[in-house]
Amino acid sequence: MEVLRVSGNSKPNALAGAVAALLRSQRSVEIQAIGPAAVNQSVKALAIARGYIAGDGLDLNVQPEFIKLDVDHEERTAMRFVVRAIALLQAG
Amino acid sequence: MEVLRVSGNSKPNALAGAVAALLRSQRSVEIQAIGPAAVNQSVKALAIARGYIAGDGLDLNVQPEFIKLDVDHEERTAMRFVVRAIALLQAG
Repeated sequence: MEVLRVSGNSKPNALAGAVAALLRSQRSVEIQAIGPAAVNQSVKALAIARGYIAGDGLDLNVQPEFIKLDVDHEERTAMRFVVRAIALLQAG
Repeated sequence: MEVLRVSGNSKPNALAGAVAALLRSQRSVEIQAIGPAAVNQSVKALAIARGYIAGDGLDLNVQPEFIKLDVDHEERTAMRFVVRAIALLQAG
């Protein structure tokens, strides 16, 4: 699974485009975010990405989990979002 | 669907307990969060809740989206997490 590392400065629209492209081509993508700002940008990007892939008949599901990342030889707790493409359910 | 409103001061463990209880009894729950800190607490709570419901053979899927909320007669953009219980997939 491709991994996208997100910072607090990441642009949600650009990140959403990358997420959408990977969901279309590979059906899944992993996002890693360290810190509240990065987590917030990630969630915004995921909400935006749903709009991008809706035209392809796709939606997405997210499963968040804690992971340990090595950053400059220091262990940091980060958030991993495992994102999978699913078929879009049409509103009734 | 029950709605849990989360602030930046919400305790992730307590919120995770509420999410887990609602997923067990109702199979779904909605979380509303305004602002980066509240979004971060929500995501942490969801990651923790997965551990709480794993013993019940359950896991969860999240779908984030933007919503408009009226807060003190002002329109604020918030994040809505629609959370659904699914069967836990055993690691292979």
